[in-house]
Amino acid sequence: MIGIAVIGAGRIGRIHARNLQQHSAADLRYIIDVSAKAARQLAADCATEVGDIDSVLADPLIQALVIASPTTTHAGLIAAAAAAGKAIFCEKPLDLDLAGARQSLAVVAQHQVPLCLGFNRRHDPSFERLKQEIASDSAGRVEVVSIVSRDPAPPPPDYIEASGGLFRDMMIHDFDMARWLLGEEPIEVFAIGSVLIDPAIGAAGDLDTAIAVLKTASGRICQITNSRRCSYGYDQRIEVFGSGGMVRAANQRETQVETANRDGFGRDPLLPFFLQRYAASYRIQMDKFLRALGGEAIDLPGGIDGLRALQIADAAQRSTEERVPMAL
Amino acid sequence: MIGIAVIGAGRIGRIHARNLQQHSAADLRYIIDVSAKAARQLAADCATEVGDIDSVLADPLIQALVIASPTTTHAGLIAAAAAAGKAIFCEKPLDLDLAGARQSLAVVAQHQVPLCLGFNRRHDPSFERLKQEIASDSAGRVEVVSIVSRDPAPPPPDYIEASGGLFRDMMIHDFDMARWLLGEEPIEVFAIGSVLIDPAIGAAGDLDTAIAVLKTASGRICQITNSRRCSYGYDQRIEVFGSGGMVRAANQRETQVETANRDGFGRDPLLPFFLQRYAASYRIQMDKFLRALGGEAIDLPGGIDGLRALQIADAAQRSTEERVPMAL
Amino acid sequence: MIGIAVIGAGRIGRIHARNLQQHSAADLRYIIDVSAKAARQLAADCATEVGDIDSVLADPLIQALVIASPTTTHAGLIAAAAAAGKAIFCEKPLDLDLAGARQSLAVVAQHQVPLCLGFNRRHDPSFERLKQEIASDSAGRVEVVSIVSRDPAPPPPDYIEASGGLFRDMMIHDFDMARWLLGEEPIEVFAIGSVLIDPAIGAAGDLDTAIAVLKTASGRICQITNSRRCSYGYDQRIEVFGSGGMVRAANQRETQVETANRDGFGRDPLLPFFLQRYAASYRIQMDKFLRALGGEAIDLPGGIDGLRALQIADAAQRSTEERVPMAL
Amino acid sequence: MIGIAVIGAGRIGRIHARNLQQHSAADLRYIIDVSAKAARQLAADCATEVGDIDSVLADPLIQALVIASPTTTHAGLIAAAAAAGKAIFCEKPLDLDLAGARQSLAVVAQHQVPLCLGFNRRHDPSFERLKQEIASDSAGRVEVVSIVSRDPAPPPPDYIEASGGLFRDMMIHDFDMARWLLGEEPIEVFAIGSVLIDPAIGAAGDLDTAIAVLKTASGRICQITNSRRCSYGYDQRIEVFGSGGMVRAANQRETQVETANRDGFGRDPLLPFFLQRYAASYRIQMDKFLRALGGEAIDLPGGIDGLRALQIADAAQRSTEERVPMAL
Repeated sequence: MIGIAVIGAGRIGRIHARNLQQHSAADLRYIIDVSAKAARQLAADCATEVGDIDSVLADPLIQALVIASPTTTHAGLIAAAAAAGKAIFCEKPLDLDLAGARQSLAVVAQHQVPLCLGFNRRHDPSFERLKQEIASDSAGRVEVVSIVSRDPAPPPPDYIEASGGLFRDMMIHDFDMARWLLGEEPIEVFAIGSVLIDPAIGAAGDLDTAIAVLKTASGRICQITNSRRCSYGYDQRIEVFGSGGMVRAANQRETQVETANRDGFGRDPLLPFFLQRYAASYRIQMDKFLRALGGEAIDLPGGIDGLRALQIADAAQRSTEERVPMAL
Repeated sequence: MIGIAVIGAGRIGRIHARNLQQHSAADLRYIIDVSAKAARQLAADCATEVGDIDSVLADPLIQALVIASPTTTHAGLIAAAAAAGKAIFCEKPLDLDLAGARQSLAVVAQHQVPLCLGFNRRHDPSFERLKQEIASDSAGRVEVVSIVSRDPAPPPPDYIEASGGLFRDMMIHDFDMARWLLGEEPIEVFAIGSVLIDPAIGAAGDLDTAIAVLKTASGRICQITNSRRCSYGYDQRIEVFGSGGMVRAANQRETQVETANRDGFGRDPLLPFFLQRYAASYRIQMDKFLRALGGEAIDLPGGIDGLRALQIADAAQRSTEERVPMAL
Repeated sequence: MIGIAVIGAGRIGRIHARNLQQHSAADLRYIIDVSAKAARQLAADCATEVGDIDSVLADPLIQALVIASPTTTHAGLIAAAAAAGKAIFCEKPLDLDLAGARQSLAVVAQHQVPLCLGFNRRHDPSFERLKQEIASDSAGRVEVVSIVSRDPAPPPPDYIEASGGLFRDMMIHDFDMARWLLGEEPIEVFAIGSVLIDPAIGAAGDLDTAIAVLKTASGRICQITNSRRCSYGYDQRIEVFGSGGMVRAANQRETQVETANRDGFGRDPLLPFFLQRYAASYRIQMDKFLRALGGEAIDLPGGIDGLRALQIADAAQRSTEERVPMAL
Repeated sequence: MIGIAVIGAGRIGRIHARNLQQHSAADLRYIIDVSAKAARQLAADCATEVGDIDSVLADPLIQALVIASPTTTHAGLIAAAAAAGKAIFCEKPLDLDLAGARQSLAVVAQHQVPLCLGFNRRHDPSFERLKQEIASDSAGRVEVVSIVSRDPAPPPPDYIEASGGLFRDMMIHDFDMARWLLGEEPIEVFAIGSVLIDPAIGAAGDLDTAIAVLKTASGRICQITNSRRCSYGYDQRIEVFGSGGMVRAANQRETQVETANRDGFGRDPLLPFFLQRYAASYRIQMDKFLRALGGEAIDLPGGIDGLRALQIADAAQRSTEERVPMAL
């Protein structure tokens, strides 16, 4: 059993805590949150206790920290956890600031603790299968990766303001998928965006609709389209085109039911949001993290993956501001 | 150029006449119909002339007759055409009466003229492909054939009364497909039916909803479902299950457009009816008939196929009346 | 917490035991099996203990029994459990013999204990949705229900011999679905079958391929096709056609990945078998059973449903032997 | 009957000639080609005669010219035809040079003859339906248009060299679709490309893989992906995302047949190329041109559409060279 504390009792913290509670290899000992109420409630739900960060860092029974607190706290917590010799699972993004991210990774490197970044989509069964198909040459040499990622509805204005913007907050997942699927590092990014959904998002200095185009040294291309609102649900699709063919992962559905009548054929909207769409990926991700801590050789996204995705997001942001492609 | 006359200027006669008019090997010389007005109009549309049956039978420039007049006239016209040495294309069914059908086929045999039955669905590109897949062993040994065939709306009551009933009028197409795809003659049929759509159909002594189950000597099975009304269009599907797999032909669509909104995903209803769904099959059928007359070795459904389908339809009808399976 | 014992540590018993172990309202206290080894192993897996039937029936902490032992033991265990005042969950079929089934239900009625039959497919999210769509009139008045159910591979010969035959063992699920979806009791069944897959199945007196047609008093029809072997996976589809439209549940897939290359487009075979396809339905079924025991008003299939499905299976079997439709 | 001459007996000229031959309103009088042999053969196929450009321009029986000769001849022929008072149908692109294109359009304007540009995809039933859905607000306000267009195999090197490059030769169709579907003029284009398929294409100074991103004044975005080789057929898809939903046109298939076996489910590759995929659009396009000449008010792409698409193609080409977005 691996002793674990979860920091952050929000939406994501709850997912992790519940997956840990049901995992036979995890001993979920503490929930930590600045809101005592939120911490108490999640601790009760998971039959565990409320903790505080200092005690947890000092607790020899705690081997790993799961960081699901607000982004601004990530870098500091990573450094503190690393200094205390704890294994770390941290939600994306690493930080909103590259320098801060690099500093925390330096501490991780110094103390040589495991660090897994929460790029959960890599563990989605459909996307993992996509990756396997590429590896087994189903599409030949990869040429063009196309990613569609649309949220059902924009987050509230205060979230937007603290989010670091669409590229660091939302498209960062797609940048990670792009790197993972292209099989080569992007060396250039061009991005454009618009405020088409809600002027309040523009007033907060952000975009709600954006397209990014990445290019690798050998000329492989990735195009990403993001929207902060999608009337028909949470739209998550990836297509990989190559010299020998194409592999794609379509959207998932809750049921396989179709109706037909004089107006035509109908199916339900897509799954509501990431909690439903990526439920399996969160579970599998935590299982892999625990198995890696248990000694299994498992390939997990780490600090460098968090850093690279953040670099691309920064460059994409600047690309929209300076209206030129940015070298990476 | 093959000199041809079309008998019958109704819905099906018009399809044949237009396909003949556009075919480079056909010389469509006459349209014949008991309604002088209908004949004149179709002849005008096809830039040809109105004829009468006696002159046409006597005309040495006419090599083939296309019979698309009411079913009750088929047997007589086949016999007359055969006696006159004309090649014959005849719409299904051969006759409503097995004895009449047999007599006319005897005349055909005596004069050794070509006779092609209008089982147009055999020429539908999707169904033809299904047949090829079976032949190339894609499904292994055929075990179960499932046919769904639903008309958009019931025909008018007077049509029902003269139609010979659902099995001879509508399911006869499916009986032919069953024979064609099973690869063995059915030796038994069981059928049940209901009046669920319109009591007037029941009052006319017919059914509007029916299921038939056929079995061959080696135990292969075919299930057919027919309805006289289908709210979402003309539903035409076939699935062939076998020892090695399955092959199926789904419905065709007018466009490939799909919409999505907060209510879900939507596609159009199916094609309206057979004129749209089987337009290609009618064209290909006539082309094959002409090429066969031109000397090419082409496998076309003939008199025996018309007879067998009619036998099965008769037996299915009796099965619903006597409520037992009927040997064939 | 509801104290429960699971009888039977085979394939299905294991599913139930694990679902009970993870359910917060269940206290899984004992596993019972004639094989001590099987009982020990499952008890260890589920962190519970091995029990014996007499002690369990006498144990006041046990409120419910889950019967997943061989079919021949069902009726006896139901009667014993009912006499001991225990709530009962029993796998299908109730018994291979109608008289035995009726006797055990009489004991249940006498002691007024809850009895839930394991018709798990009613709880499958897609089929439950199908049922809701019918209830909300998406298809109008139900006219024709079509059920396709194909197992990936036949069971071993000794299973076949003890199974009661395809209709009681396999199609019984579909008979229950037919009753559930038709919205009316069938009053007649006709069935035919063949031995097309394995002569050993025929030698054991059973069929491996079968079609059944059911009819209700108002003329609604259900067609069911079963095969004991399906090369492309576990094929489970239902389509409900009605006066206003059609609702259907297609097969489920493990991922949404599709590949394309010069040979065409490809998708994986279907899920391997019922453990994968109906995993959710087993979990939901047990949850509903527990919630019903906890006092919630939940509609669950009961003894009468087990009896009716068995009656239809018996009649279908006789129909294939006497080659006539059987009244129900 | 409208007297018409077709200039160019190549691949596209043949399509137009055959569609004209079968159209009841067209009197196809001449085929013109620099290759006497090609002209003779197509004239024979279409039961018409070989002509020469001077006589045709002088022939009062010729009301319209269909220009399907090499791109370099378009501008000159348009000007000559306009000066002779003939209606003009011209294949895309208008010219490889904007100045030349503008000059020829000036002559058209001066003589006020009808000019229809061969952007045939606007007449494809699926894309036309897409446009109608947008017009009827199915997707709400348009936000992001995504176009996938992949040719099955690259053209020969000498074609590449004379083609004007991928943007003017291939993506020009997609630029027209973008303008047509965005509902606003693009004001900026960014494009990147690679040589991933054949180094000979790079040696000829062209790209074989390219992505373009367009933006309109109100912030609407269009992304286009082109590849000169696609292993699984001719890939042609469009998706329009908006404030209220999404509308998309998927690829068309030759048949609706699907196979399944132990390796999974399979469908054919896509249609081979544009002759098959856009057969209907070419036929409908010519019918609309003829009906417009006959006096019907029909909205057809004209000179300005040809010019705008060419401007975007030019800017996209420069964008790849200067590696910055280009204003339009």
